[in-house]
Amino acid sequence: MATAVWSADPRTGKRREEGGPVAVEATAADVDAAVRAAATALPALADRSVRSRLLRGAAGLLEESAAEVVAAADAETALGVPRLTGELARTAYQLRTFADVVDEGAYLDVIIDHADPDATPIPRPDLRRWKVPLGVVAVYAASNFPLAFSVPGGDTASALAAGCPVVVKAHPDHPATSELCAALLRRAAVEAGLPADTVVLVHGFEAGVELVRHPLVAAAGFTGSVPGGRALFDAAAARPRPIPFHGELGSLNPVVVTPAAAAERPEAIGAGLARSFTLGVGQFCTKPGLVLAPAGPDGDRLLAALTEAASAAPAGVLLDGRMRDNFLRGAAARAALPGVTSPVGAGDASGAEEPGGTDARTAGGADTAGSAGAAGGAGAAGGADAAGGSDKAGAAPAVRPGYVVAQARDLTEPGAYDLLLEECFGPLTVVVRYGDAAELAAVLDRLPGSLTATAHLGAREAEQDGGPAAALLARLTALAGRVLINGWPTGVAVTAAQHHGGPYPATTSTSTSVGATAVERWLRPVAYQDTPAALLPPELRDGNPLGIPSRVDGRLVPAAPAS
Amino acid sequence: MATAVWSADPRTGKRREEGGPVAVEATAADVDAAVRAAATALPALADRSVRSRLLRGAAGLLEESAAEVVAAADAETALGVPRLTGELARTAYQLRTFADVVDEGAYLDVIIDHADPDATPIPRPDLRRWKVPLGVVAVYAASNFPLAFSVPGGDTASALAAGCPVVVKAHPDHPATSELCAALLRRAAVEAGLPADTVVLVHGFEAGVELVRHPLVAAAGFTGSVPGGRALFDAAAARPRPIPFHGELGSLNPVVVTPAAAAERPEAIGAGLARSFTLGVGQFCTKPGLVLAPAGPDGDRLLAALTEAASAAPAGVLLDGRMRDNFLRGAAARAALPGVTSPVGAGDASGAEEPGGTDARTAGGADTAGSAGAAGGAGAAGGADAAGGSDKAGAAPAVRPGYVVAQARDLTEPGAYDLLLEECFGPLTVVVRYGDAAELAAVLDRLPGSLTATAHLGAREAEQDGGPAAALLARLTALAGRVLINGWPTGVAVTAAQHHGGPYPATTSTSTSVGATAVERWLRPVAYQDTPAALLPPELRDGNPLGIPSRVDGRLVPAAPAS
Repeated sequence: MATAVWSADPRTGKRREEGGPVAVEATAADVDAAVRAAATALPALADRSVRSRLLRGAAGLLEESAAEVVAAADAETALGVPRLTGELARTAYQLRTFADVVDEGAYLDVIIDHADPDATPIPRPDLRRWKVPLGVVAVYAASNFPLAFSVPGGDTASALAAGCPVVVKAHPDHPATSELCAALLRRAAVEAGLPADTVVLVHGFEAGVELVRHPLVAAAGFTGSVPGGRALFDAAAARPRPIPFHGELGSLNPVVVTPAAAAERPEAIGAGLARSFTLGVGQFCTKPGLVLAPAGPDGDRLLAALTEAASAAPAGVLLDGRMRDNFLRGAAARAALPGVTSPVGAGDASGAEEPGGTDARTAGGADTAGSAGAAGGAGAAGGADAAGGSDKAGAAPAVRPGYVVAQARDLTEPGAYDLLLEECFGPLTVVVRYGDAAELAAVLDRLPGSLTATAHLGAREAEQDGGPAAALLARLTALAGRVLINGWPTGVAVTAAQHHGGPYPATTSTSTSVGATAVERWLRPVAYQDTPAALLPPELRDGNPLGIPSRVDGRLVPAAPAS
Repeated sequence: MATAVWSADPRTGKRREEGGPVAVEATAADVDAAVRAAATALPALADRSVRSRLLRGAAGLLEESAAEVVAAADAETALGVPRLTGELARTAYQLRTFADVVDEGAYLDVIIDHADPDATPIPRPDLRRWKVPLGVVAVYAASNFPLAFSVPGGDTASALAAGCPVVVKAHPDHPATSELCAALLRRAAVEAGLPADTVVLVHGFEAGVELVRHPLVAAAGFTGSVPGGRALFDAAAARPRPIPFHGELGSLNPVVVTPAAAAERPEAIGAGLARSFTLGVGQFCTKPGLVLAPAGPDGDRLLAALTEAASAAPAGVLLDGRMRDNFLRGAAARAALPGVTSPVGAGDASGAEEPGGTDARTAGGADTAGSAGAAGGAGAAGGADAAGGSDKAGAAPAVRPGYVVAQARDLTEPGAYDLLLEECFGPLTVVVRYGDAAELAAVLDRLPGSLTATAHLGAREAEQDGGPAAALLARLTALAGRVLINGWPTGVAVTAAQHHGGPYPATTSTSTSVGATAVERWLRPVAYQDTPAALLPPELRDGNPLGIPSRVDGRLVPAAPAS
């Protein structure tokens, strides 16, 4: 019997009854049919110009339907119309960027080595290498970006750019938005002369597990939690024929504020941090989750500014009731650690619940002035929600952003404070005060891999070649895939140089899910040896008839101007 | 108590007692010490010019010590001085090729996008991306190439080129050669100004398992069997922090001979096949293991030529007793399948054993003339050797090459004949006769992934754009990482365009272990956002001070001439 998939309103926690269920969960047979249908699109996708047309067409259709798509996404995520309007523009831009990547052709990594009978140590045959699509790609949509990291998002766009059909597993937080976007992508496929099944949508947790195990699925892209992503990664690795699993799981996104930076601009850093960690109700994978700030008066001033800005930050609605429960519980557990203070208490914004961690929160030395009144905690309601087993049931209104403060000395060895080194999804950040460079280094040594790492430097530090700031940059490079100076990690530009990935658990591979090079995930190289020109694709023939960038006999050949 | 590692002579199966054991097996503590020692070399390896010097120095030392290294390798592998002299030259060439890769710098994939405050849909920060080394790389040496795919081989060379220290797990078939080569690499490191522990050698099966689990090991390269490689792949994936595992496991290397090719040059193809599958006593990962030849008189002529050439091929000594047992057993099991014939029987070249599979071999319709007399099988001695549990104990002299013939109709569905779709390491190939294009297609649909796939085409087929040969090429492309026309897959040129990898089980990733792009396996991208020039590596600064190829604001910039 088919299990219905319903849309729900995170602002009320209530299922939308009007119009009935959005879809049904896919059975194993449904997943099999979906993958086989997608696989039939593979040959038609071999034509690069068709793929370019598909991507540009999808961008256009998304923009034409913007009002409807944004309304659907807002109703299911509560992220707000302005944010979702921006996300739609970014998603359309991303689709067109990948069309540009396809048109240029550099991503094919064409390398031609002509035969050399006189080569040493032995004669060389003619070898011509490029990259071919892996096959059907499974995409697991994210909760927090219903467009840019979901059905029409970067994984789908880059897989289509590579020539791979896509089966998307919808996120349960936005099934109606997913259906709407899938319909647009399928229409774009048909309009580009491709089968509609170039993109297929499935719903359901079990469907997601079936999908990664399907023999015809050749690779997977995932954005989500560490436990969910790891389970799917393990399933991908355990297959009789393992497949690449590009998962973006969890990220702490550490920020280091040097003493010089704290001395020079404590207010700007405190206010900037508050803006960044509360953006999108803290539901960004790049949210700064751990901030190393110096002890002493400059750090105190930074925290005072942070307190002021964070106290003034609006409450917000999280994506679903389970996330809300996890956030409230996670914030309270961190605040309850001995010695940890909570200058601005994160929690339920309704004020109805008494914070569960009050004692702990006031037990430590309060190292900043100002506390944001009724701080929240994981009350009985949270536990009841989780026991209810429904994603949406019992979701209460908004949560309030907050931050906690810990001491570096508590984090230099494994123990209970390790909780502070885990991502807490939602508007909470952890400030760790360090006394000296040794304490800072000791905490950095304990950090897991992240998508980003940030340093706030003093003006002179930033200009000194080979000094302590350069050493700090090298240390942060080992921790993350993107390193920022004097900025904030939230906001991920879609450009060629972007890298949105990092050491595990940030990602399960060395790849990126944002930016032009994301296409590399869905390709594998093939070399043709001594193959007659008539049998080669035009991209690999002599004279570069399509004018694509390549490497010929060792020399790099930039793109030829279009004739 | 330390377990001694001995060198043994495959020509006699006897341990070399003179001089005592070569080394001892590494304990878990030894592996930990080895990895930690290697990790200390990471910072010094950051300098590209030092790495280039190391690689060129290692090539020079290898050549200087050629006589000693080749003698040691021949004594342990029986591969012969001419072959090993060539392998040493190739290994030195490979080291220098990677030095060239390091010097050029294109492999860093430098991409610079300057800030654009007017970018749509949102302003863009300054982003500069390149690639950094992953950390300590574990290399698992191969049995069949004691130099080119072992201690000083492609995995080690490419990892060092990437800036990664290496811990090599020696293959038990050539521990003395491994020690000798490791000493040369360590000397080259010191002469380049690096710690000797830039390369560390360990011995022992358990050490190999410990190595892939070590927290400081960041990636692994492997060349070997499917069971061994899969076990290590699984261990790499099961780590708390999974790591990339680039394993080259097993490969059938199918060859398709079209009716036109068989009609035009049956003798050349038959003789060429015999040369290729017997090269190096059939111990090549690219050995053509399955040959699809047409039924009928042209195919018969091809097989007659194959029989003549294979019968004349010399017997050879396999790398160790276990491989010999497996080969004899595997050849006999294939020959014993109902309807399978054995025109040239592979087996023990001593003539002492009666073939075990005589009945089966003569039961099927003998579709070619000529049988190579005393064909071998897996006799009682083979079983006894295996039970003995020692790699070398009981190895008898040479084995004789052979081939078996099966019918395509037996291979179109899963069943007992699936054994013919598995690699048989050693000088055996399987010829499958097909009646028509449908039978050929049905067999191709059942083939596992391979390193290579080859088509032998008629002269007119090879010149026809978009015809059946193009369709065959597309079909073979789905099966392999290198596709050859009218050639033989043994022999893997070290060039930029080479790809030595393929769909599982050929490799566990989409990467190559031969050719310039093999360096990509040991790197991960990092993007720097809004980072002051003083803190950036020179490669990422404006004006391209080091003149390396890059992409700047979307445009590809070839290497600048050295100033």
